[in-house]
Parts: sequence; structure tokens; C-alpha cells
Amino acid sequence: MTPPQSPTMRALVFDGAAKVVDIPRPIPAPDELLIRVRRAGVCSTDLEITRGYMRFHGVLGHEFVGDVVEGPPEWKGRRVASEINCVCGRCDMCAGGLANHCRDRTVIGILGRPGAFAEYVAVPRQNCHQVPDAVDDEAAVFIEPLAAAFQITRQVNIESRYRVAVLGTGRLGLLVAMVLKRTGCRLVAIGRNPGTIALLDRKHIATTNVDDADGVGRHDVVIDCTGSPDGLPLALRLVRPRGVIVMKTTCQASQPLNLAPLVIDEVSLIGSRCGPFPDAIAALARRDIDPAPLITARLPLSRGDDALRTAAQRDQIKVLIDPTT
Amino acid sequence: MTPPQSPTMRALVFDGAAKVVDIPRPIPAPDELLIRVRRAGVCSTDLEITRGYMRFHGVLGHEFVGDVVEGPPEWKGRRVASEINCVCGRCDMCAGGLANHCRDRTVIGILGRPGAFAEYVAVPRQNCHQVPDAVDDEAAVFIEPLAAAFQITRQVNIESRYRVAVLGTGRLGLLVAMVLKRTGCRLVAIGRNPGTIALLDRKHIATTNVDDADGVGRHDVVIDCTGSPDGLPLALRLVRPRGVIVMKTTCQASQPLNLAPLVIDEVSLIGSRCGPFPDAIAALARRDIDPAPLITARLPLSRGDDALRTAAQRDQIKVLIDPTT
Repeated sequence: MTPPQSPTMRALVFDGAAKVVDIPRPIPAPDELLIRVRRAGVCSTDLEITRGYMRFHGVLGHEFVGDVVEGPPEWKGRRVASEINCVCGRCDMCAGGLANHCRDRTVIGILGRPGAFAEYVAVPRQNCHQVPDAVDDEAAVFIEPLAAAFQITRQVNIESRYRVAVLGTGRLGLLVAMVLKRTGCRLVAIGRNPGTIALLDRKHIATTNVDDADGVGRHDVVIDCTGSPDGLPLALRLVRPRGVIVMKTTCQASQPLNLAPLVIDEVSLIGSRCGPFPDAIAALARRDIDPAPLITARLPLSRGDDALRTAAQRDQIKVLIDPTT
Repeated sequence: MTPPQSPTMRALVFDGAAKVVDIPRPIPAPDELLIRVRRAGVCSTDLEITRGYMRFHGVLGHEFVGDVVEGPPEWKGRRVASEINCVCGRCDMCAGGLANHCRDRTVIGILGRPGAFAEYVAVPRQNCHQVPDAVDDEAAVFIEPLAAAFQITRQVNIESRYRVAVLGTGRLGLLVAMVLKRTGCRLVAIGRNPGTIALLDRKHIATTNVDDADGVGRHDVVIDCTGSPDGLPLALRLVRPRGVIVMKTTCQASQPLNLAPLVIDEVSLIGSRCGPFPDAIAALARRDIDPAPLITARLPLSRGDDALRTAAQRDQIKVLIDPTT
């Protein structure tokens, strides 16, 4: 089954505006696999990119699951999810065990490399993880963002006695709350969206309103998943002296910020990005975490631009893109 | 030797403007000592207070050495330096071993308690440390800021293989550089002031210019001692992925700040305030650290307002105030 010489494919491309177009199907490099995408998920980072973040132009999308259609025999036909950082293996970061911070990396759908809102995507073989049968396609789309949520537990020791607040009950905030719930900590999720708050209630995760001042200066750990420059000032208000703020928010906007409270209270502010795929895959396979209730819309790739607009609406959580229909 | 009933004393008071006035001598509470101040030092925090920081009105000053003139017999006549956080001993922070972050604290010359730019100051007995004979009065004034510099080594493990940058070669930056030099790390101090750079040269501490781009994204640890909102963006530029920024800068000003680089590079930003007096006293007593070259002016308390103006000049480092003449 040799693919035709210059086949094209459908893809959602951002070049100042997001549109579905036909472009050449990627040709995998020797160390890459060609993957036929089964499902992909819209992340807030995709939306930030359409506002200018990272100045990325190209095929969007980095949360996906698909089948290997080109590659070594031991990979062909496997259903895989892919880590997003494509690394050189030679720089000081790679040599030092911090390959996700490779100096020369490309990042799928974010930095210098086409993304997965497409029929096909080529990714380095070393980025791929086989998805077990127990994890269906829709759950597998969550492996990447769920890994980013698990990264917090690799960076900060969340003790069960800790009072922990997750700020933002959007796409990532919900996953973070679900991951932290497993630690047994005294967890509260703080958000404004009634829909996501009902979802947290069903998961037995306490919620409170942004304006509820209870717990000011009393939280051992605060996770900023607001995706907004308003998140950090609130986090600084909630965290206790010598507490930890984990920052997941990346956004294009800046706002004036006085960090004197961070210094006075000797707070630690820790940036957190991509995380361990094996932790996420295992949690999904064991059904410790069920992300299905987070899916609020499914659109075919032909309506990819609609999918972005839908994902930007306040009542939406995870919007899936299906390139197979 | 009973002091007169309502004796007055000279003090440098800030009430929107800084002026030397006669005010009642403080009457120590039962758990306090009355100290006759021998020398005090002007800190950047004092200057920030005169710009509105902390909204403090009252007697300024928190770096000092003096003699106990009222208190229990075992303290009377001793020469002491005092920690600045006056704590309740009962709140969750005090009970949890974080008394410097007491919820109900007052802070000498900074928050709810008169400072030491005065002939006398009353401070809790538990705050006081006897100053050994090997540390003269002028060196003893540096115990408090030097302890703040040592706090960095309590918060971050500075390995000798680490590349470390100290931003700002002012009062605190110089002390921080002198403390970090002792760790054997690959240290560079970055500042603009030719006078302080010459001083660092004599201490065999490498220096470089702010605009020298060498080392962008290559420093394991960066200490922001700039006292300016420009410090953090520079620190974010110099630190490596997964590196640590220690933030000493507290200032009244805010400026727009995009923290996306902190998230992407998973940098840790750690606020750092007061530190361990025993470490500072021991280093001064052993003459491991000689702060004498940092003293650029000495003024009598009667010219305290001049002392503040002097300390604000770019060619000045540490300005001492002498209430005894």
C-alpha cells in the first residue's frame, strides 16, 4: 500500500485567519512516523495562537490520537498519541535530561512544525506512545492535556493535608482538579462557569466563587489555570506565606503586576508546561479519570474553523475535531 | 539609673515627608528591651517607603546595632542587633515554624512599629542577638541585610557547578554577590554602576554589563536585586529552562509583565525576604565577609533627612546614620 506521489490532505491552517484548506500530505523524515489522525482536541493554546501567541502560522492542533500508516513495521498499524516537543537530542537541555526544553525543538502545531488538525501528521517516532485498547479515541485525545495536569504532581509534592485551590474551571482546570483530587488534598476549584461547576460537583470536587474571600492567604498550593492575566493576582491573594503557585496560564496579554507580595510572603511561583504521557495513559486506562463529560462538541475537520469558534464560547469545554468524516 | 518620666529623643520620622523631630522616647513592653542605637544603616526599603511603599508612617530604619539600656539583668549592657519581624507566637504561621511570616506581625520601621533611625528603639527580647566583639558597630549594621542575603542559600541549593547571576550591584546586590561567592559557584554580578563594579573586582567577583547578552537562557540561578521592575524581565531572559529566579526586589512600581516565558521554560520564581541572623553574625565575626568598603557616607541623626537623600544617589552604597553624635 504505497501512498500516491504527491497526495494532498485537508487541514485547518492559521495564517492570520484560520481556514480549512487542501495542502500536501506531509512526508515523514527517516525518524518520523506518518499518522492518520482519528481525533484531535481544541486547546486554549490553539485559541491563543489565533490571537497571535507564539506568532505561529501553519496547521494548528497538538492534542490527537491516530494510526501509524508509514514507519517501521513494529510501529505500522499502531494507534498512538504523540508528545508535542520534537527535540534535537544533542543540546545541553537534551543531554541534561530536560529534552522537553530542547534548545532547538519544534512543537507540534505551536512552533515550527505542522499540527494535527489535519488528516495526516508526521511526528518523530520517539514522541509516540501506543494507546491501550482500554482508552478509546475520544479519551485518548485527552492524553496530552492530562499529562500537562500530571506535570504539577511531578513538580510539587501535594500532601494530603494541603489546602489546594485550582483557579479556572475550563478545559485544563477541570483536568488539573481531577488529577489533584486523587492526591486526597483539601481541594477547591474556583471558577465562574455554572456548567463546569456542576461537572465538578458530580466528581465530588468542592467549588467556590471567585469572589468568595474565604481562604485568602490560607492555601498551601494554588494552580493558575485561568488562561488570563487576572489569574496570578488572585493566586497571590489566596496563597499562604511560603506557599506555592503553579502557573499553567500562557497568554498573549500582559498586565501591570506588582510582585511585592510574592517577595514579602516568600511565595514560590513555578511555571508548568508539558507532562508525563505514561501517567496520563495509565490513569485513563484504569478509568481513574474519565474525561468524557468534558466533551461538549464534535465537529468534522471540514468545519475546523467552526470548531475554534465553538471552543471559544463560554459554555464549551472540550471540542473535538474529527478528520475521518 | 532610672530614666526620667517622659523623656524625649531625636528621630527621623516619615509622615509624607522625612524629617528629624523630637518625640517621646519609647517605653518598652514587658517582653521588650530598650536599646540605645549606636549606628543604623539606610536600606533601599527605607527609600521605597518614602515613595509610598507599605504606606508606613513613623520612625524609619530597621538595620541597626545598639546597647540594651532597659531590660532584664542578663540583657542589660549588651550590644545587640535585632531581627525586624515582631511576632505573636500564636498564629498558624508562628505555630508552623514560619514566625517571620506571622499573621499579626509588626516590622521595625516598616509596618506598625517605630524604627531605629532614632536615639532609642524598643524591640522584643526574642528578636535580639548579641553582637560578638569581633564585629564592630559599622559591620554590625550589616547583620540584617547580610542575613537577607544568606536567606537565598537557605531557599536554593547553590551548587558549585551552577552558573549564577546577581542582577543589581547596589546595597543588597553586593552583599548577595559576596555571600554567593563563598559557594564556589560560577558567579557574575550584573550592574551599571562603575563604582560598585570596581568594588566587586577587588573581591574577585566577575562582573558584566546589563547589555551583554552572553549567557541568555544559560544561568541556573538568577537573583534579582535590582530594586526595579526592570529586573524580572532581565532575569527571565538570563535564566535557563527549569532554572530558578530568586526575587529580592520589592518596589512600589508595577509594570506590564508577560509571564509566558516563565511557564514555557518551567522557571521557578522564589520570593525572598528576611534571613538567618546567626549565619550573618558568624560570617562577619570570622571576617569571611567584610562589608566596610560598602560604606560610602556617615551622617549624624540630626541630618537624617540628608542621609536619605544621599543614599538615593547613584554613586552611594551604604549610608550610615549615627545617633550618638
